[in-house]
Amino acid sequence: MRISIAQINYHIGNFERNRELIIEAIRKARAEKADIVIFSELSVSGYPPLDLLDRIDFIEKCRTTVNEIAAECRGIAAIVGSPTVNPNTSGKKLYNTALVLSEGKVIFSANKALLPTYDIFDEYRYFEPEKKFPVFEFRGLRLAITICEDLWDEQHFDNEFEKRRLYTISPMEELAKQNPGLVINISASPFSWSKTGPKAEIFKAKARKFGIPVIQVNQTGANTELIFDGASMIISSKGEIWKRLPFFEEAFFTFTTDELMEGSDAEGDARTEPVELIHKALVTGIRDYFTKTGFKKFILGLSGGIDSALTLALAVEALGRENAWAVLMPSRYSSEHSVTDARALSETLGVKYDIISIEKPFSAFGEILGPVFEGLKSDVTEENIQARVRAVILMALSNKFGCILLNTSNKSEAAVGYGTLYGDMAGGLSVLGDVYKTDIYRLAAWINREREIIPSGTISKPPSAELRPDQLDTDSLPDYRILDAILYQYIDLQKPAERISGEGIDRAMVDRVIRMINSNEYKRYQAPPVLRISSKSFGDGRRMPLVARY
Amino acid sequence: MRISIAQINYHIGNFERNRELIIEAIRKARAEKADIVIFSELSVSGYPPLDLLDRIDFIEKCRTTVNEIAAECRGIAAIVGSPTVNPNTSGKKLYNTALVLSEGKVIFSANKALLPTYDIFDEYRYFEPEKKFPVFEFRGLRLAITICEDLWDEQHFDNEFEKRRLYTISPMEELAKQNPGLVINISASPFSWSKTGPKAEIFKAKARKFGIPVIQVNQTGANTELIFDGASMIISSKGEIWKRLPFFEEAFFTFTTDELMEGSDAEGDARTEPVELIHKALVTGIRDYFTKTGFKKFILGLSGGIDSALTLALAVEALGRENAWAVLMPSRYSSEHSVTDARALSETLGVKYDIISIEKPFSAFGEILGPVFEGLKSDVTEENIQARVRAVILMALSNKFGCILLNTSNKSEAAVGYGTLYGDMAGGLSVLGDVYKTDIYRLAAWINREREIIPSGTISKPPSAELRPDQLDTDSLPDYRILDAILYQYIDLQKPAERISGEGIDRAMVDRVIRMINSNEYKRYQAPPVLRISSKSFGDGRRMPLVARY
Repeated sequence: MRISIAQINYHIGNFERNRELIIEAIRKARAEKADIVIFSELSVSGYPPLDLLDRIDFIEKCRTTVNEIAAECRGIAAIVGSPTVNPNTSGKKLYNTALVLSEGKVIFSANKALLPTYDIFDEYRYFEPEKKFPVFEFRGLRLAITICEDLWDEQHFDNEFEKRRLYTISPMEELAKQNPGLVINISASPFSWSKTGPKAEIFKAKARKFGIPVIQVNQTGANTELIFDGASMIISSKGEIWKRLPFFEEAFFTFTTDELMEGSDAEGDARTEPVELIHKALVTGIRDYFTKTGFKKFILGLSGGIDSALTLALAVEALGRENAWAVLMPSRYSSEHSVTDARALSETLGVKYDIISIEKPFSAFGEILGPVFEGLKSDVTEENIQARVRAVILMALSNKFGCILLNTSNKSEAAVGYGTLYGDMAGGLSVLGDVYKTDIYRLAAWINREREIIPSGTISKPPSAELRPDQLDTDSLPDYRILDAILYQYIDLQKPAERISGEGIDRAMVDRVIRMINSNEYKRYQAPPVLRISSKSFGDGRRMPLVARY
Repeated sequence: MRISIAQINYHIGNFERNRELIIEAIRKARAEKADIVIFSELSVSGYPPLDLLDRIDFIEKCRTTVNEIAAECRGIAAIVGSPTVNPNTSGKKLYNTALVLSEGKVIFSANKALLPTYDIFDEYRYFEPEKKFPVFEFRGLRLAITICEDLWDEQHFDNEFEKRRLYTISPMEELAKQNPGLVINISASPFSWSKTGPKAEIFKAKARKFGIPVIQVNQTGANTELIFDGASMIISSKGEIWKRLPFFEEAFFTFTTDELMEGSDAEGDARTEPVELIHKALVTGIRDYFTKTGFKKFILGLSGGIDSALTLALAVEALGRENAWAVLMPSRYSSEHSVTDARALSETLGVKYDIISIEKPFSAFGEILGPVFEGLKSDVTEENIQARVRAVILMALSNKFGCILLNTSNKSEAAVGYGTLYGDMAGGLSVLGDVYKTDIYRLAAWINREREIIPSGTISKPPSAELRPDQLDTDSLPDYRILDAILYQYIDLQKPAERISGEGIDRAMVDRVIRMINSNEYKRYQAPPVLRISSKSFGDGRRMPLVARY
């Protein structure tokens, strides 16, 4: 049998676009004489549609779009993903379904059984889990059609408290009883740097265990926080990756089941470094946030520090230098080299930049608040005013010229609340909010791997917010090497305080950092969406009660 | 049998406080010679603990607290709620459990079977659903112990697209087979104005259907957005409310099962008006946000309009006038009566107020942005600058004096994006973000029911943001009566556009409003937490994809 797989960048709720992309791939597959072409999970609606799934009009649009696609399936079959209405009188109103379309009709459907409901996933919010597992016979081959998590019944979580078997059933065990010849898995599996290896192992282990080839078709592109890495896999019955589609790109591939039966390890030693994948992920995330919201231009505040420099470099790569606008907003506390470095970076990248001093509005606030602040010492209030004055300027430019403000905060400062709400925490999208400060340096080195783009001065100087004379981040925070080690263990691995360890880390330090994390939940609640590159990012994947005493 | 029920205001993660409140009630129940005292769902941890449940240290703390409480159960039994570890090798790591404690030990436990995972509920994120339903025999009486949603297998959703039976099993059907003499339901059931009646009907119907009395013990108090109304019910086997505990207050009540067997309709005609309940809910929500985060003082911008006036009146009721600080921040566009009305309200309520003109910083921004804005017309940018200057002032006062900024936006403007991000959308807590503008007037009338607190000028004048000369809300928005009717049908009832109707509503108007709602998801993403009084509030209960094209 000849099979095509289509790794596509879908757009949530953009039925016309998704339909056109799917139909185009069906035509291409037919031209390549494929018997069937496979798309990914919820390809018709885009993933994740979230509460749009609660709207009957949205589900009706899914249904009509499926019918329109089915009408194109002449002389070829297609497997698409769509929500479908649960016809039973009880249970959730929807199923998460893989539909086999042929000659204008739905000829088979399989519903998802394992509904991920953890981290950024909320599938049981919408879908009824399926309990029956029929195989589908197509042109003499018995297909086990599964949907993403259906093959993840056994997995390793970063949080050791989770069970390895999160579900009480295993769809593949049930399907295997019916002797399928091929496993198809349609996915919407987002990127996280720590999951690339384990994800491949899960699919390889399933192929090996049951001695059946596995075809995993993932989507690519980003939808707000979630960045899908594509990297669809065709795995032989020996459990070796026979073909891997590219990371973070649309792709299309046709092959025969005979070829696949042979097997070989196409993955080999060509594994990609995390820093390279993270770089591609962030560029994809920025690009798609703009493309899918219909914006082109961005603006950011360029401080001379490494975070804004890296954000600018990534955004220029994603959106083009012609769409960039950097604004340098020095204050009385800005160092000379900050302005020099920021200017140098803008010139290297060839982006438009402006220098707007914050002195006048900052003084005006000082003047009108003077009577109320009389006799009180200068403190973090005055630092926050500077950060907020910058946000007012950036948002004014954003409003007037229709460009999106990019936020430049990193995960370390977001974690401990080292940032000003409505100040440097402002923006439409947080580019680096899931990147720890120590990884910011790794990414900067990667950006500079061939030539110096980010100025060496920006990389080598000690981090500072420059909101008071001679301020350094280390005045308020532990060294980032130590801080990040604690943050990673507490936030990403969810280790208890007493098990957090490492060089230079003592219990008092751990407790101090944990207090900072917990007392700043209220700030993160109002932070912009964060491009997610880890398996525990701030945002929808981490839900903390604001009023907890813990 | 003598039974006590304890309706308590728990604090998430504050194990010491929760334990003390529970032990105090156990002692009181023992003094009143009760055989058993019943607490509410997850009483040990507080509800909802959200992702604190992912932390092994948090669960361990629940376990030790349960043991400490059990040690107090000498000569009396207690039913408490706590997460417990799922001992099986597969499935979610936790159960949501009702534990019967007696003589220092756990003598029985029942796990929750129906896990609400919709709107603000995420229980399947953490808990494994129970599939076994044993009754518990205690001093000759067979108790069917259930947890909240377990009795909600049949319910009516505001969104007609939902099924009335959301689950494929009915715990009560299973329990009824074992002839229980009493149904106990420990709850953590948040308030929504449209659910008070239906909630009582659900429990009454269960009692009637099975001919068994039902005791529902709910918590009270608020945890961030969620406000629990208490109002615990004791329902006779005829399905009549025999006793109702107060709304939004802690309460304790002891009775015998013999008394209860008689029945009578204690609810009678004494049903409370929605406006009165909403008023109590908001006061509770404000009070507990401050109490539980350890703050006392609040600040807000008082514009002379009805939203900020109502917010101030509610907050003074919740926190006391001595903790209030109103700031009037007139601009060149503020009308004289706005300042007069704001001043009058401050004086009526006896709260401290300051008048700080925004003119100087507003001009300073005009000056520094002048060169960049050269030749461009004044537009919404300049309006937003005014709103953001006010936010900088309020946040500076908040930072300097340690008071929380209360947000004064209403649900109508939040819905259509008629507000400035980092401007009037700023604040630690949104008091009125779930109250439509037309209901704002109802609440104001209720506040003024005995004497004029909110000035009549504030109530009678046409709504205006006063950000340009002679501006009125109706310049940009439909009349609020029409707008709110559309918003309610689209957001709360989730009706499709073509089924939204009413006086003065045509399809073009509906489409225009829907476009405003959808294109402003990005603003609401960064809004403060909203006190929830409806069954579809902005915030965690409504999750929309920002990049959707729909």
